[in-house]
Amino acid sequence: MGGPLSMRPRTFIQKVERSPDDPTGPRFCIEDIFPCIDGGRYAVKRIAGEPVEVWADIFRDGHDQIAAALRWRRDGETRWHSAPMVFHSNDRWSGSFTPTEPGWYVFEIEAWTDAYASWRKAILLKQQAGQDVGVDAEEGAALIAEMMAGDGEAEAALENFRATGDPALLTADALADAMRRSDMRPDLTRSIPIPLLAERERARFSSWYEMVPRSQSPVPGRHGTFDDCIKRVPEIAALGFDVLYLTPIHPIGKTNRKGKNNSLRAGPDDPGSFYAVGDASGGHDAVHSELGTIEDFRRLVEACKAHNMEVALDIAVQCSPDHPWLKEHPQWFKRRPDGSIKYAENPPKKYEDIVNPDFNAPDRIALWLALRDVILFWVRQGVEIFRIDNPHTKPLPFWEWLIREVHSQNPNVIFLAEAFTRPKLMKALAKLGFTQSYTYFTWRTTKAEVQEYLSELSRYPERDYFRPNFFVTTPDILPVQLQKGEPWLFKARAALAALLSSNYGIYNGFELIEHEPIPGREEYINSEKYELKHRDWNKAGNIASYLGTLNRLRHENSALQQTANLRFLGVEDSNLIAFLKQSADGANAIASVVALSREAREFWLHFGDLTVAGKPVRALADLKGGQRHMLEWGGVRLRIDPGVDPALIFRCET
Amino acid sequence: MGGPLSMRPRTFIQKVERSPDDPTGPRFCIEDIFPCIDGGRYAVKRIAGEPVEVWADIFRDGHDQIAAALRWRRDGETRWHSAPMVFHSNDRWSGSFTPTEPGWYVFEIEAWTDAYASWRKAILLKQQAGQDVGVDAEEGAALIAEMMAGDGEAEAALENFRATGDPALLTADALADAMRRSDMRPDLTRSIPIPLLAERERARFSSWYEMVPRSQSPVPGRHGTFDDCIKRVPEIAALGFDVLYLTPIHPIGKTNRKGKNNSLRAGPDDPGSFYAVGDASGGHDAVHSELGTIEDFRRLVEACKAHNMEVALDIAVQCSPDHPWLKEHPQWFKRRPDGSIKYAENPPKKYEDIVNPDFNAPDRIALWLALRDVILFWVRQGVEIFRIDNPHTKPLPFWEWLIREVHSQNPNVIFLAEAFTRPKLMKALAKLGFTQSYTYFTWRTTKAEVQEYLSELSRYPERDYFRPNFFVTTPDILPVQLQKGEPWLFKARAALAALLSSNYGIYNGFELIEHEPIPGREEYINSEKYELKHRDWNKAGNIASYLGTLNRLRHENSALQQTANLRFLGVEDSNLIAFLKQSADGANAIASVVALSREAREFWLHFGDLTVAGKPVRALADLKGGQRHMLEWGGVRLRIDPGVDPALIFRCET
Repeated sequence: MGGPLSMRPRTFIQKVERSPDDPTGPRFCIEDIFPCIDGGRYAVKRIAGEPVEVWADIFRDGHDQIAAALRWRRDGETRWHSAPMVFHSNDRWSGSFTPTEPGWYVFEIEAWTDAYASWRKAILLKQQAGQDVGVDAEEGAALIAEMMAGDGEAEAALENFRATGDPALLTADALADAMRRSDMRPDLTRSIPIPLLAERERARFSSWYEMVPRSQSPVPGRHGTFDDCIKRVPEIAALGFDVLYLTPIHPIGKTNRKGKNNSLRAGPDDPGSFYAVGDASGGHDAVHSELGTIEDFRRLVEACKAHNMEVALDIAVQCSPDHPWLKEHPQWFKRRPDGSIKYAENPPKKYEDIVNPDFNAPDRIALWLALRDVILFWVRQGVEIFRIDNPHTKPLPFWEWLIREVHSQNPNVIFLAEAFTRPKLMKALAKLGFTQSYTYFTWRTTKAEVQEYLSELSRYPERDYFRPNFFVTTPDILPVQLQKGEPWLFKARAALAALLSSNYGIYNGFELIEHEPIPGREEYINSEKYELKHRDWNKAGNIASYLGTLNRLRHENSALQQTANLRFLGVEDSNLIAFLKQSADGANAIASVVALSREAREFWLHFGDLTVAGKPVRALADLKGGQRHMLEWGGVRLRIDPGVDPALIFRCET
Repeated sequence: MGGPLSMRPRTFIQKVERSPDDPTGPRFCIEDIFPCIDGGRYAVKRIAGEPVEVWADIFRDGHDQIAAALRWRRDGETRWHSAPMVFHSNDRWSGSFTPTEPGWYVFEIEAWTDAYASWRKAILLKQQAGQDVGVDAEEGAALIAEMMAGDGEAEAALENFRATGDPALLTADALADAMRRSDMRPDLTRSIPIPLLAERERARFSSWYEMVPRSQSPVPGRHGTFDDCIKRVPEIAALGFDVLYLTPIHPIGKTNRKGKNNSLRAGPDDPGSFYAVGDASGGHDAVHSELGTIEDFRRLVEACKAHNMEVALDIAVQCSPDHPWLKEHPQWFKRRPDGSIKYAENPPKKYEDIVNPDFNAPDRIALWLALRDVILFWVRQGVEIFRIDNPHTKPLPFWEWLIREVHSQNPNVIFLAEAFTRPKLMKALAKLGFTQSYTYFTWRTTKAEVQEYLSELSRYPERDYFRPNFFVTTPDILPVQLQKGEPWLFKARAALAALLSSNYGIYNGFELIEHEPIPGREEYINSEKYELKHRDWNKAGNIASYLGTLNRLRHENSALQQTANLRFLGVEDSNLIAFLKQSADGANAIASVVALSREAREFWLHFGDLTVAGKPVRALADLKGGQRHMLEWGGVRLRIDPGVDPALIFRCET
């Protein structure tokens, strides 16, 4: 469907450019390049249309004047773009470029000896010292003639010099400017190539609403449909969510189907887990017949687009024993000595309703292509966001290959990695191309934990490849903290997620304060993973409008549309977290305070000498209450009553 | 002489090992390798015979058990050595190896899936949970048969299992140990190769005495000879110096010869600057006839060896206009439009008595080979230490090539970079292979400056490639601080150099408190760079025996024989610097206090909870005075009188 498996050129290789014919190069050191992930092995992440600042140490031996440029091109294109770099101090240079379209890019730094500038500097110093420069001028004339052959301005200056012998003609500022047109670049040295992935804005700023489609029926006990989902789109869009993330929509297997609460025996009416993908009617590229048809699904996609939302699909690379691939591609599944196929397990845990394809199968390349084609099938249905289930249990090179394959056809596609595993493995998935990543946010509940974790995520190099997406709960995770069902705490957690991270999400039912766990575990009881659920979305006490306000403020304030611009503020209360975010141009600066405990109290929020766009903050405008607070002595006295609202959000005024 | 210029294999290239036939690999991430300089571009430096500890993050997808090994080989050898790595936590592993001989090495990390351990862990967990493991045992038997075909122990266990059906036979500890013999390593992934330069011990620990040979005559006005130098060897060796570093010993040009104090006109008896290398009688591979013959020089080399010292030669890649190369290889020197050869300059400064060969000349490869052969010539005369003059004004790739070329013939050769230039360029020279480097020590005089600079040099990664050599003065540098000629300060600076840095040196005359500058400059007046000098080495007030004591303590205490083991101690006096060094095994720990001002005073030296080899320090034994001080309240009250001795040196006792 997407053509044969292609091996992409290895643009990630760090190489020393030293031709076998020229042992004397490269003359320059180009070191400590920023941004750069793992020596150029992985791509730096940026947003298309936003400038990329590049810094490096650039130097060579000796006292010559040097010049440097930044060059870049989109992957697959042959033409390089170029921009000059400027010197700062201590051998440090910088330049910038803007990748205009989403896609994979590569950039490099070029450095060369500026022969004319070196000559010019020397002759001017000698003239100042009163030394004879006759021979120096001759040398300069020869150099200019060589570097600028055919250039009218340079040739006119040379002619003038030959007529008058005046060296000043060769060092004139206008000629010095013109000399930059020369394409003679002695000692030209190139840095390692550094890959960069430019994505569309939603990679950086998105608000996810996770919905289980079969639970969206307004009639209790009836299986929900895509049409039921379509009916809910306007209200969800009105709350300010822009990604409608659907749990898997595929046919569900019958063999070993799980019953309510993950029981081993399903009753005749139990719908089974939507993670047991596939039955005789189809697999990963089919829709569950009770949800509707593929045309119905496309209408849902269109309905979302009409409300400036997008559908995100949940891709779980696993099969129910009834998935068509088991018959069509038996070689993708490992047989045990007794002839059976092993179901998924993490001993001693067993997942009897699913089997995993074997990524080591001799026929694995066909499997890789089929999985890629699943994604491309849904891209053709209008889906450009995929949430990948458990990517950390499949080979990392598979994802690296898959993402680039999909991007070669549509660079707008966004991938969210649902990996709850060890930190380095989660980071590795982000490095190899996942747009966004699930995080440990759910379990970071104290002030110290939140500040430490956010500091890690917003520092370099993490900020350049790992985009967190903070989910407050998921169908698999009901954190202990929320199991008492305190509305103020549900609001506080939503506010932390929405204000700390520019990408965040909720799982349906959160707005209804659903909080009943399996006793002693961090999971929902009667989870809709195993049964149909019916909800009254207008139930008293719901916090939908609170979420709507958070989303509105996120949309209105560009400072809240990124994550790495985070800076914590001082507040002497271990149950209050305060932080500032400001937009790159400084025009928008938002200070927030979120309570971690229930009691109302007053507190000082410290700004000290903090400036926004170079000016000291003088007042805070409350974006929810409307009041205006003047700063005094570098801070402001505020009151918070979490029972009313656990989050204060202010626009900083200078 | 050393054979044609060879292009060495590019072992420095960071590569992703992904065969075009197998898009599914590499399965493992091997990241954040320590030690590693600039992503493996440059070699890590170590001492032959000392263990190299290697750390890395090693992980793959999923829940399988993994194994890892460190492998290494000497450059040019084909056989790899290997040692297992051990897991610590958070995906971090370590291993170690010892490069036994000086030379260039490369090491890599290998990781693979431990299929047997993965199977064993799963079946044991299932048995614990009371699950049926019949099929699992069959799978294990097949795996063992595959991995250990032909292994008696494994086959016996399998036979036993087939007879009894008891899975415990397949998970027995003895069999688990035996399984490590299997050479089946599924998913084998290799890290980038990391180069390592192992040098002999003197690379790490050396005490240099810089001598101007022509000034060593005991008869005023007579040109010194190698025989005069030989006569001084016993006294210099007795002071504990182990490197006798000679300024250039080559014939000196007559054209544009410099007179006293660098004047443009030399008198008929002026000997000229020994940096104006070469006359009609020879160049870089000849000796100045007034010093003696090459045989005399070899006797000096032998005399040093007999006293456990070595000769270091000063190599300046520059030529007097009379150097034979100007006639033999005119193409190595650039002609100006008027037909002249440009003498060296750094506008507006001019060096009229020397010309530089052109490293960009079309015939440059012959020039490179000739320069290499100069080094190899002196290596054949028994010299294994070279101090390279101004390497930062010659192409960096030249030095990288030269050092490896020389090491391919004699890996014992030590190169000291005399580059006083910008910090990144000095570090680059160290990275590409210079054994030791001159530093900014001479200009770091306050406590804050010394502590900041030493912290930079002893941190990672600098500690792994940059070995400082602290010279207190040089023929070019008489720092302002020493121009008053205060003996206590000469002692303090020598103590700082000798105690902070395991490589240090003095320039002859320092022990005589020579201190007269050219007014307003940091240079000696009447410098012996331009004239013969005669000295009374036993002059009253000389500090030779003080230097001898420093050297003796350095030799007696292994803690003082390295630099990166430095740790500053607390002392509340901005003119006292205190620090601790301890040997890797903790057996030797030396605390030193050096005064930066003249007045006598008492002070507290703080140890706090500091331990040495795991035990708290309880007493300090004064290695010069012999007293013993007991610590109380985590510190000790001491007295220093810089007029008597500006440096206290203690052995820490536990």
